[in-house]
Amino acid sequence: MKLIADNLRITKPGIREALKNRDAGPVQDLVRKCAGQGVFAIDVNTGPLGKNPEAAMRFFIEAVESVTDLPLLIDTANPAAMRAGLEAAKNRAIINGFSLEPVKLEKILPLAKEFNADIVGFLLYPDSRVPKTEAERFEIALGLMDKAEAAGVAKERVIIDPVVPPLVWEDGIVQARTVLNVIRALPELIGFPIRTMGGVSNLGTGAKDKAKRRLLEQSYVAMLASSGLSFALMDVLDTELVRAARTAGILAREEIFSWGMVPED
Amino acid sequence: MKLIADNLRITKPGIREALKNRDAGPVQDLVRKCAGQGVFAIDVNTGPLGKNPEAAMRFFIEAVESVTDLPLLIDTANPAAMRAGLEAAKNRAIINGFSLEPVKLEKILPLAKEFNADIVGFLLYPDSRVPKTEAERFEIALGLMDKAEAAGVAKERVIIDPVVPPLVWEDGIVQARTVLNVIRALPELIGFPIRTMGGVSNLGTGAKDKAKRRLLEQSYVAMLASSGLSFALMDVLDTELVRAARTAGILAREEIFSWGMVPED
Repeated sequence: MKLIADNLRITKPGIREALKNRDAGPVQDLVRKCAGQGVFAIDVNTGPLGKNPEAAMRFFIEAVESVTDLPLLIDTANPAAMRAGLEAAKNRAIINGFSLEPVKLEKILPLAKEFNADIVGFLLYPDSRVPKTEAERFEIALGLMDKAEAAGVAKERVIIDPVVPPLVWEDGIVQARTVLNVIRALPELIGFPIRTMGGVSNLGTGAKDKAKRRLLEQSYVAMLASSGLSFALMDVLDTELVRAARTAGILAREEIFSWGMVPED
Repeated sequence: MKLIADNLRITKPGIREALKNRDAGPVQDLVRKCAGQGVFAIDVNTGPLGKNPEAAMRFFIEAVESVTDLPLLIDTANPAAMRAGLEAAKNRAIINGFSLEPVKLEKILPLAKEFNADIVGFLLYPDSRVPKTEAERFEIALGLMDKAEAAGVAKERVIIDPVVPPLVWEDGIVQARTVLNVIRALPELIGFPIRTMGGVSNLGTGAKDKAKRRLLEQSYVAMLASSGLSFALMDVLDTELVRAARTAGILAREEIFSWGMVPED
């Protein structure tokens, strides 16, 4: 299980301010810290971006790439911003992401073929509703694979994100288990070792008690690893969570064990 | 997932000394602490016991029951000591345990019927070798269920322990995953919601770095819970491990979530 930093988000006031002032400093500082955790990639969550989205996205891509060679996930629902990001990126870029929503199928999915890029596909209904059951999620996953194939995007390019729910949703805890089962079952369903991604931070949305949130995230990240998750999108500056994720990754994947593998305290 | 204390073991010098001196104090102190953690049961691991095993077992049972009403797992390979424990116990007693080993089938398994007690069955070969593959474990599990039925012990009375391996075994890490898969698959294989037990402390046998051992146990206990384990046999005086196990138990079983369920720091 590889770790992807979800720390760079425009919802953070300091990052919004940095964009407004075109001040790369705060973005660089944050990305340097994340890269220092030995992660696989950095999610660049710019949101949809308002006016002049292309220039805003270029600002982010250039700021991030000035301090790291790691792959970037370009995380925006705005097709113009997505294209600008893919054009600007020198590092390997991953499209985050598409769904069965018509605008995503028309405007985002084709960019994966055009830029020969990996693309994340969300298990959501066309109107962005979250499905309830495993069966619904499987049907949507097959739908995404069909759409990708029709758009000339190889299945090797697709990463399925089954959408980790906040536990505080009415049936959040049941959905969180459903997500684990879906991750486990998808490769056989699709008949291919499809890669999967899960957003760990979603689970504890709305938590007032930080210690409890961490405990839940540490536990769930172990379950995600055990289910075969490929990429854990998470707060990589939470050192305890990173250790838990790494340790779970060892238990979930390694063929030979040695104590030297286990992260130090 | 219910927690069972594995803390009371005759391998601890203080406990061996207590038996020698027939001094209930150290046993009572330990059991009081374990019971204070809100566990489901106490494993009374007396080992085979040497001369006069019946009196030695009665000493332990009486010492433990003088401070708790919790169920006891009577954990000995000595049939005479087992019978003495079952006769002495006023609390609910669980036999820990039997396997396909002939002496266990002849001398231990029938006690489950005679005392109308739950009994743990280990997934081990008749010569006590640990099986390698999932298929071997399934075959042994079915063998145990057949033997139990033939001995007049209902399947509702059986708890399967698939034997968590030390990670330092040559293929320990692969076996540890196999155990998770077996726990997940057993109910369907047996066609009944069979209960399972796993010994978490086995995993880190031989660890020199205590922090790394804890990290592995916390991660694995979450995976065990996610696989549907019924009973985690573990060091219940490791408060962090208990919190991890409880949290994982919530994620693995609850239908409705609230922050109040999650253990405090």
